[in-house]
Amino acid sequence: MADIQVTRDDVELDVPTLVEGLPGVGLVGKIAADHLVGAFDMTEYATVHCEGLPEIAVYREGEPAVRPPVRLYADEERDLVVLQSDAPVSTNAAEEFAGCVAGWIEANDATPIFLSGRPADKDGVPSLYGIATGDGEALLREADVDSPTENGGVTGPTGALLYEAQRAGIDGVGLVVEADRRFPDPEAARVLLTQGIEPLAGVDVSTDRLVEQAEEISEARAALAEQMGEAEDESTSARPLGMFQ
Amino acid sequence: MADIQVTRDDVELDVPTLVEGLPGVGLVGKIAADHLVGAFDMTEYATVHCEGLPEIAVYREGEPAVRPPVRLYADEERDLVVLQSDAPVSTNAAEEFAGCVAGWIEANDATPIFLSGRPADKDGVPSLYGIATGDGEALLREADVDSPTENGGVTGPTGALLYEAQRAGIDGVGLVVEADRRFPDPEAARVLLTQGIEPLAGVDVSTDRLVEQAEEISEARAALAEQMGEAEDESTSARPLGMFQ
Amino acid sequence: MADIQVTRDDVELDVPTLVEGLPGVGLVGKIAADHLVGAFDMTEYATVHCEGLPEIAVYREGEPAVRPPVRLYADEERDLVVLQSDAPVSTNAAEEFAGCVAGWIEANDATPIFLSGRPADKDGVPSLYGIATGDGEALLREADVDSPTENGGVTGPTGALLYEAQRAGIDGVGLVVEADRRFPDPEAARVLLTQGIEPLAGVDVSTDRLVEQAEEISEARAALAEQMGEAEDESTSARPLGMFQ
Amino acid sequence: MADIQVTRDDVELDVPTLVEGLPGVGLVGKIAADHLVGAFDMTEYATVHCEGLPEIAVYREGEPAVRPPVRLYADEERDLVVLQSDAPVSTNAAEEFAGCVAGWIEANDATPIFLSGRPADKDGVPSLYGIATGDGEALLREADVDSPTENGGVTGPTGALLYEAQRAGIDGVGLVVEADRRFPDPEAARVLLTQGIEPLAGVDVSTDRLVEQAEEISEARAALAEQMGEAEDESTSARPLGMFQ
Amino acid sequence: MADIQVTRDDVELDVPTLVEGLPGVGLVGKIAADHLVGAFDMTEYATVHCEGLPEIAVYREGEPAVRPPVRLYADEERDLVVLQSDAPVSTNAAEEFAGCVAGWIEANDATPIFLSGRPADKDGVPSLYGIATGDGEALLREADVDSPTENGGVTGPTGALLYEAQRAGIDGVGLVVEADRRFPDPEAARVLLTQGIEPLAGVDVSTDRLVEQAEEISEARAALAEQMGEAEDESTSARPLGMFQ
Repeated sequence: MADIQVTRDDVELDVPTLVEGLPGVGLVGKIAADHLVGAFDMTEYATVHCEGLPEIAVYREGEPAVRPPVRLYADEERDLVVLQSDAPVSTNAAEEFAGCVAGWIEANDATPIFLSGRPADKDGVPSLYGIATGDGEALLREADVDSPTENGGVTGPTGALLYEAQRAGIDGVGLVVEADRRFPDPEAARVLLTQGIEPLAGVDVSTDRLVEQAEEISEARAALAEQMGEAEDESTSARPLGMFQ
Repeated sequence: MADIQVTRDDVELDVPTLVEGLPGVGLVGKIAADHLVGAFDMTEYATVHCEGLPEIAVYREGEPAVRPPVRLYADEERDLVVLQSDAPVSTNAAEEFAGCVAGWIEANDATPIFLSGRPADKDGVPSLYGIATGDGEALLREADVDSPTENGGVTGPTGALLYEAQRAGIDGVGLVVEADRRFPDPEAARVLLTQGIEPLAGVDVSTDRLVEQAEEISEARAALAEQMGEAEDESTSARPLGMFQ
Repeated sequence: MADIQVTRDDVELDVPTLVEGLPGVGLVGKIAADHLVGAFDMTEYATVHCEGLPEIAVYREGEPAVRPPVRLYADEERDLVVLQSDAPVSTNAAEEFAGCVAGWIEANDATPIFLSGRPADKDGVPSLYGIATGDGEALLREADVDSPTENGGVTGPTGALLYEAQRAGIDGVGLVVEADRRFPDPEAARVLLTQGIEPLAGVDVSTDRLVEQAEEISEARAALAEQMGEAEDESTSARPLGMFQ
Repeated sequence: MADIQVTRDDVELDVPTLVEGLPGVGLVGKIAADHLVGAFDMTEYATVHCEGLPEIAVYREGEPAVRPPVRLYADEERDLVVLQSDAPVSTNAAEEFAGCVAGWIEANDATPIFLSGRPADKDGVPSLYGIATGDGEALLREADVDSPTENGGVTGPTGALLYEAQRAGIDGVGLVVEADRRFPDPEAARVLLTQGIEPLAGVDVSTDRLVEQAEEISEARAALAEQMGEAEDESTSARPLGMFQ
Repeated sequence: MADIQVTRDDVELDVPTLVEGLPGVGLVGKIAADHLVGAFDMTEYATVHCEGLPEIAVYREGEPAVRPPVRLYADEERDLVVLQSDAPVSTNAAEEFAGCVAGWIEANDATPIFLSGRPADKDGVPSLYGIATGDGEALLREADVDSPTENGGVTGPTGALLYEAQRAGIDGVGLVVEADRRFPDPEAARVLLTQGIEPLAGVDVSTDRLVEQAEEISEARAALAEQMGEAEDESTSARPLGMFQ
């Protein structure tokens, strides 16, 4: 996989779980993935240079090191890998990107968890259901994740990743959570973590910080609406399929 | 045919009939095809990955299994195959798609039935006529399907499929039915089934459910207009050709 | 010429004349070509599958046979071939199409007659002039066709055909007739036939039907304006070139 | 140079001067080039079929011969070649075209004179300056052509030709003259001829006709504005470069 | 590196520093680079013909020599190279350009200094921070350049250059300075020079002229706004990344 450069050869992974964190509806995947990277203090493990990804240079406060916008983080002990992205993947590049990432998954015998929000006017705790590729259905059962409550489809780069995983027969799962269609939704990301990622990946993570963020956001929606801007245009989403479409 | 992956090697087909069910005017092809899959409880037989098809992941209520948007269903006993699509095929991808499907038809010695609506303000039972490629004309005669009552043309992916079938000399037929230009039209789909597909494929299917749907739809047109959205933009249609065009 | 499939091997042509009938200004080429096919009851001789042509399926009232939109018709006795098109050739595909047709012309030692209207506010009988490629000028002289009365240029697919014929040194002619810029113009097509095609191809054809059509059209211009729609956008036209352009 | 077809093998050129006459600001290059072709009754010498040029068929009053829109004219005695174009070269095709023409220049050891107008509100005789590629600077000095009076840049196909000539080390010159930004400017073309082309190419040409045209145009500006239409959009121009751009 | 043509073989560089001066926010990179070329009277050393760069011909007042819009200037004594550009590099060409320039950097063992403005409403001296690729962080420390005070990203051609340098493991630095988002900002360019380029490249340059220009510009903002025009659209910028984007 020339397009995914491992920068830490000393990290050893054994049939790891991969959590995909692309920006999408409610940014649920990105928020959940970023939360894992921070909470577990994960190691920057590889840079992702798949064809079609935007060539921009990102950096962090207090750290001069330039990094590409899409990276893999690893937690050797938990056998966990997180795909973190600081930029949306365009629809045009989605298929190329999906093939590139699927290649890494197969080469590393990883079990992917794909994350998607579906726009909803929520009432109480956001509801979650799971979908599966290969033999992923057994994983969903073990983790007690519900089956879809509607006919639906996932589009965008996460849709392409699920499509590729299905085609290649990779054992993987997708988690679809109700999410705010306009604002970042840490509450939905929390549900992804507690009801899906924790039992599926066998990890345990505090999500208090996400509860706080959810409160902060509900107080500052107007300002955020502007800040998110066009990023959402090219995002991934799941949406119900009607009887006729 | 690397692009059409058979997932059920145990199903044996012998010179089958293929019913194409792409979304188009009045969704007549899709409604008829979906009806066959349900009524005969057909087996999901192959996934269609032709170049240019949208890479999205679809799933069904109560079933976590991710599937590609275009699939083949088989009924071994009736020697019937149905192409089901959950997404429109774009005009740009139509030619690539048509070549890909025509390849499968030739390799499997199948007899295709292509379905198209033509926009009309109907009065009573929608009228139907048939067109043919290769030696398909004899099939139309046997099934007592009328000849075209006008000069016309079929565009979009179904037009490209008919074009390819003509070019390759495949024995096939196309059924063109009057259909509602704005709403799903189960009544027109029923005519496709009873007057065309049943005699052509030598099958017998109850269409009571389609009659009910037609009634439901005439009661709920406004809501459906919105739900269908842009799907129709890239749909297939037949339209009359004037003296000068 | 793999792109032009001869479907009637029994028809023998000997250094034939080819009349090109693509839709353009006033549809003059298409009307003249269609008139020849009908008046001489010409044989459908070959299908044209050049790269870039629209893959649509056309059919005729009372005849289920699907055909491609561009076809060649032959009259063995008169050594005449007509290119008939039921769809406009887009500007993007014009060069590819021109090379493909020029190949057939060379391989069959045919003498092409290209047809173009030039928008004009006519007064009396539309005026006609001829242009030539290779040694076509002698043919124009023999047929008593006038030389251009202005500097001009032919664009679109017919322009590309003339360009290719010039480049390849094919002996051919182009006929440019004054035509209505908005409506089908059977009167201009009649002039193409009587003053150009008849003497050039050595044929004799009744054009009474075109006179009738011209009368019908002048009575029904408004309705036709709509029916023609966008077809004209990608049409071929000749236009005068000013002193400075 | 397969893309430039010499049609007159009997014409012999010996290290000729090439005057480029593409349409641009004020049409100065085209007017000057066309004037030379007419005044010296130059021989149509070669047709230019470089990739990307529009495939249209042009013809002239009284002459049925179809010709491509870009051609070379030669004057054996004066060792002069003029590139005449009846159609603008699009910006997209500019680089391909420039490489194609530069190839001919090198193969024929020609000295090119590129022509460009720069938009100006003129006052009196339009001012002219020269730019150079390879060792062209010596030619400018000999011909007493001034150096640029500003920082500037030439864009469009003429810019691409100068770029290619510079890159390939061809000895050539460019003449930049003040020109009307909206109307054909025969007065500016006259300055190109008298102050630049005549001394550089060692020729002598009457420009009385251009003076007359300049008068005609200043009388008929409104009508011409319309006739020129979009041709200018893709034209070549020189424009000053500010301190910061 | 066929795309970068050295025109002065007599200039010898030994592990040089390369200052990149592409137009971007506030034109800070271009102003700083141009200032170095002028202040040190640097030698035009190479022309840059990377795929995707605009093929335009630029020239300077009083000098007829045509040059390409992107060039390298060298100062043998100071072991300094400056990339000067008279035209913006489009976003589409950014990746190709970045690979081309990165190739030269590696082949010449150069240490690049990339320059970017980030839009800000400044208050007092513009603040500056540095980012790094490869082992560039040590260079920043030695030169006493601050670390980023925010999470951020650099887009456009400079972003692509930093991305490529990171990927290839080139030891390089990027300087990000607060700059005016609408007008040329010589004051920000001065800060790049005095606080970043001087200590990093070990050079000493008077910046009095930039102070004067800053004063001139603050007096003539309205006129300049128009002159800059669309150039800025395709420029490079750094911008802060919010908590959620």
